[in-house]
Amino acid sequence: MEDLQSLARLELRQPTEYFESIYVVEKVIYQARSQYQEIMVVELRNLGKTLILDGWIQSTLIDEHIYHEALVHPALSLHPEPRRVLILGGGEGATLREVLKHNTVEEAVMVDIDPVVIEVAKKYLAEWHQGAFEDPRSRVYTMDGFEYVRRTIDSGERFDVVIMDLTDPFGPEIASKLYTVEAFSLIKQVLNQQGILVLQAGCSTLFPKAYEAVENSVRRVFRYVTEYVAWIPSFGYMNSFILASDSINPEDYVERLVETVDSRLRERGVKTRFFNGKRMLAMLLFSGVRLAKPG
Amino acid sequence: MEDLQSLARLELRQPTEYFESIYVVEKVIYQARSQYQEIMVVELRNLGKTLILDGWIQSTLIDEHIYHEALVHPALSLHPEPRRVLILGGGEGATLREVLKHNTVEEAVMVDIDPVVIEVAKKYLAEWHQGAFEDPRSRVYTMDGFEYVRRTIDSGERFDVVIMDLTDPFGPEIASKLYTVEAFSLIKQVLNQQGILVLQAGCSTLFPKAYEAVENSVRRVFRYVTEYVAWIPSFGYMNSFILASDSINPEDYVERLVETVDSRLRERGVKTRFFNGKRMLAMLLFSGVRLAKPG
Amino acid sequence: MEDLQSLARLELRQPTEYFESIYVVEKVIYQARSQYQEIMVVELRNLGKTLILDGWIQSTLIDEHIYHEALVHPALSLHPEPRRVLILGGGEGATLREVLKHNTVEEAVMVDIDPVVIEVAKKYLAEWHQGAFEDPRSRVYTMDGFEYVRRTIDSGERFDVVIMDLTDPFGPEIASKLYTVEAFSLIKQVLNQQGILVLQAGCSTLFPKAYEAVENSVRRVFRYVTEYVAWIPSFGYMNSFILASDSINPEDYVERLVETVDSRLRERGVKTRFFNGKRMLAMLLFSGVRLAKPG
Amino acid sequence: MEDLQSLARLELRQPTEYFESIYVVEKVIYQARSQYQEIMVVELRNLGKTLILDGWIQSTLIDEHIYHEALVHPALSLHPEPRRVLILGGGEGATLREVLKHNTVEEAVMVDIDPVVIEVAKKYLAEWHQGAFEDPRSRVYTMDGFEYVRRTIDSGERFDVVIMDLTDPFGPEIASKLYTVEAFSLIKQVLNQQGILVLQAGCSTLFPKAYEAVENSVRRVFRYVTEYVAWIPSFGYMNSFILASDSINPEDYVERLVETVDSRLRERGVKTRFFNGKRMLAMLLFSGVRLAKPG
Repeated sequence: MEDLQSLARLELRQPTEYFESIYVVEKVIYQARSQYQEIMVVELRNLGKTLILDGWIQSTLIDEHIYHEALVHPALSLHPEPRRVLILGGGEGATLREVLKHNTVEEAVMVDIDPVVIEVAKKYLAEWHQGAFEDPRSRVYTMDGFEYVRRTIDSGERFDVVIMDLTDPFGPEIASKLYTVEAFSLIKQVLNQQGILVLQAGCSTLFPKAYEAVENSVRRVFRYVTEYVAWIPSFGYMNSFILASDSINPEDYVERLVETVDSRLRERGVKTRFFNGKRMLAMLLFSGVRLAKPG
Repeated sequence: MEDLQSLARLELRQPTEYFESIYVVEKVIYQARSQYQEIMVVELRNLGKTLILDGWIQSTLIDEHIYHEALVHPALSLHPEPRRVLILGGGEGATLREVLKHNTVEEAVMVDIDPVVIEVAKKYLAEWHQGAFEDPRSRVYTMDGFEYVRRTIDSGERFDVVIMDLTDPFGPEIASKLYTVEAFSLIKQVLNQQGILVLQAGCSTLFPKAYEAVENSVRRVFRYVTEYVAWIPSFGYMNSFILASDSINPEDYVERLVETVDSRLRERGVKTRFFNGKRMLAMLLFSGVRLAKPG
Repeated sequence: MEDLQSLARLELRQPTEYFESIYVVEKVIYQARSQYQEIMVVELRNLGKTLILDGWIQSTLIDEHIYHEALVHPALSLHPEPRRVLILGGGEGATLREVLKHNTVEEAVMVDIDPVVIEVAKKYLAEWHQGAFEDPRSRVYTMDGFEYVRRTIDSGERFDVVIMDLTDPFGPEIASKLYTVEAFSLIKQVLNQQGILVLQAGCSTLFPKAYEAVENSVRRVFRYVTEYVAWIPSFGYMNSFILASDSINPEDYVERLVETVDSRLRERGVKTRFFNGKRMLAMLLFSGVRLAKPG
Repeated sequence: MEDLQSLARLELRQPTEYFESIYVVEKVIYQARSQYQEIMVVELRNLGKTLILDGWIQSTLIDEHIYHEALVHPALSLHPEPRRVLILGGGEGATLREVLKHNTVEEAVMVDIDPVVIEVAKKYLAEWHQGAFEDPRSRVYTMDGFEYVRRTIDSGERFDVVIMDLTDPFGPEIASKLYTVEAFSLIKQVLNQQGILVLQAGCSTLFPKAYEAVENSVRRVFRYVTEYVAWIPSFGYMNSFILASDSINPEDYVERLVETVDSRLRERGVKTRFFNGKRMLAMLLFSGVRLAKPG
């Protein structure tokens, strides 16, 4: 009986069609419902502090660096000189943190719809933003990302890289309207000619329908569309990302990709824990894995 | 996928040797660690607000009345005129609330070791205490129950009924020292000659060893020892209670138990939702159920 | 890691609106899908051999005696001389076993729709039927219970007690058509004038709507309708049963119920492990418990 | 209630320090306990037929090709002409199937300790072995792998590639004695000078201690030791593999690895679903990912 006693506990359940993952919650640090979503910051066993939106893990302390480095650096490394970067979503501030590591960046604009998430990040997720919100190059807006893009088109402002750091395409409604042809067309209008879009896109192996719907929409808008993947241990799967551009094609770099990426990171003073030229090549080459059909 | 999406959630796991019960946590209202234990107030799906100590459900809004009425009224109804009542534990204030319903009660002393639990109860569990802490007949101390009993022996104060409302005998260490022969001997010394002790004692059907250890200790101290049981739906089992006295034996009442209980409740102005004379008889007659041995 | 290793295992999940119960499956003894349902015989941790239909536990070795004694003996004990008994369902053979314990019984007819369940019971559930299928007083039919009752009305055969031992009223479709006014009216036609019907009816505390629907149907057909309850530990709840008759009312017995039941059991040579006169009184008096509304 | 009804079900729980994965078991096809382990063949929801040893998933129909191609083809592709291959473990027959795809292979010896696993594979896992057991180049022994290696040293037989396809190094005792310096030294003695050993080694990211213990043992015996990884979706993680040799170093191939692998597969008539030169490069470059420390 004594062993069982110690198993009484709070847990987090994350179901998929294939299996459910159950995480042990050691501590609830914060919980509230904003106008847009349910927000929790918890301490998960062996995974550390974790942000949860509408019941789904966004990132954990133990591997958020893998997720955020994999999201940010491929696009920024492929661009010869990223100066202006737009982040849609990214409430934790970690995407912003990675963008600002590139010393070519003069302005990083982050637009998240939910002011409560940003307040929570500022108060509880210092390991994520690490002061990025206070960097003089940062501009943070809390409003609808679409609406921001529309206004920016009119104002004439343009960006070198746009990063969509939103919840999964198969996930909560709050994000679904941002994965359409219309959305990508709007975003294209705020990109410079050499501009690159990158977005996280769920998992093309486990949820191929949702992924392919997103990729097809991107393909109708951009000339070069490339998937890459990174294993996020706390998610339990390889996360798919999509690079899209009308002028930059990762395939053109293949011969010298590793060297190009490593030298750009070095020149721009970017220090990373997971990402480098070899990992970038690995992420590109590992994409496209498909399951066999069950019996 | 959409159905699964909505299943991402926080849960509470309560394991036993027989099965684990998983409760859906809709909201975490409060969580902190006191000097003695981890304290949570949560909203459970379909069970409502719930107090949890060290991971274990103490009582839920939907059926705390069954637990607290079953704990308090048998002993108070068997006593011809309970004037002074001592509660050990009972932090929620609901045991105190039920005791004060008997208008014969002139003083109800409650001693809980953890001041944080009482603060939490006052702030978050109004449905439990319903103002009992403010009743002029209430005296609430936050100290070790043993220590209180020892001092009371010396001071000469005596009680008609002592109620032990502590966590399970098979549970956290904090309570284990209170289920010994020494503990019951001490308690006996603060009881009047017609005094009655009642305690909750886990589940004699599912956890017979833990239950029998407690009952045996009680039998070594008191002349009449009687088990009764009440099904607490949110626990998933019949909770065992033990009545102990040197002068009052529930068996003496059997012929007229239902009438005696009902008339005493009526005379003392006690209104209940679960308890009455028939239920008291049922609780006595339903005790002692044992499982067959598995293959 | 070593501790976790040993936790890899097969489990059985039983969800309700209030909580889910998870049982550890130590061994799968039998699994197949019949024309009517999915049938499994497994070994559950600490609960022993268990029959499962469509994913739901029917009875476990450790407490099937509580369920089957509680189902059979109240009705048979209330009847002054039960000679012919009809069982609808009851595939395990344990209801038949309990019925045959009354030496007044001359014929016990059991009708279960699924021949595979009966084959499985004969082969794997000897602890349940204990040879009851071979008793010369037993007649076992595999056919639709309704159809059997209709033919019996025509044939003129009548019964003293009818026992409905079917899956839960809130459960699989296979059983739902047997809990209607029409069904109870048909059954009434095969009962003698002093006849009694008893049925298991889920749990009136946890699933009051399903229970009340069944009770209301019974009330439209029979004059005296009485609920009683028994805690089935492996179910995690108090199971409700309904007694119905046009001539026998348990309330008439209250004064002398305990004595009547005990003497009838004795006279008829009935040995039980859970049931007796006091337990019968307890089961009647414990019914009708209702939960409070959650906040 | 109706929705919940359909959730009653059998599940498989796979715990790790980080999270538990729960799989829905749709059908138990086979279950028995051999002298060595508990063996189950089940149908998992959306993952298809699955072999389970001692409660742990070995491989599922939907992604066994990823696991077995990743285990076999890197070593065989790095070897200029693999003619004799030894498989330790690999009861399903799928490792044997992949080895036999290389038309250079003249003899493939498979040694699995448990004859019951091989019988089960022959009877229930045709999608895995696809007739490999009947290939004239196959020799299958059921005996202790160590014992086989010891006898082979004496007999003078040597192999070009040895494949250890055993349960996880952090797993059941049955496999633990095969991950020691002594074990690897023995294996080295049955390898030709250009010989290569490959073994699966758990997950270096999630279980770094177990992985590093294995890698350190291999390093004490072989000159060139290289990790590579492949994401096995049904495991929920990147599986680590270790290549070891005294004469062949994957790093020597880096410039022309993709071409070398692809041309050897082509020349030898090997058709694959997951593996190719690019994937091999990706598997090498993706290894070595480490988590951040929590809190």
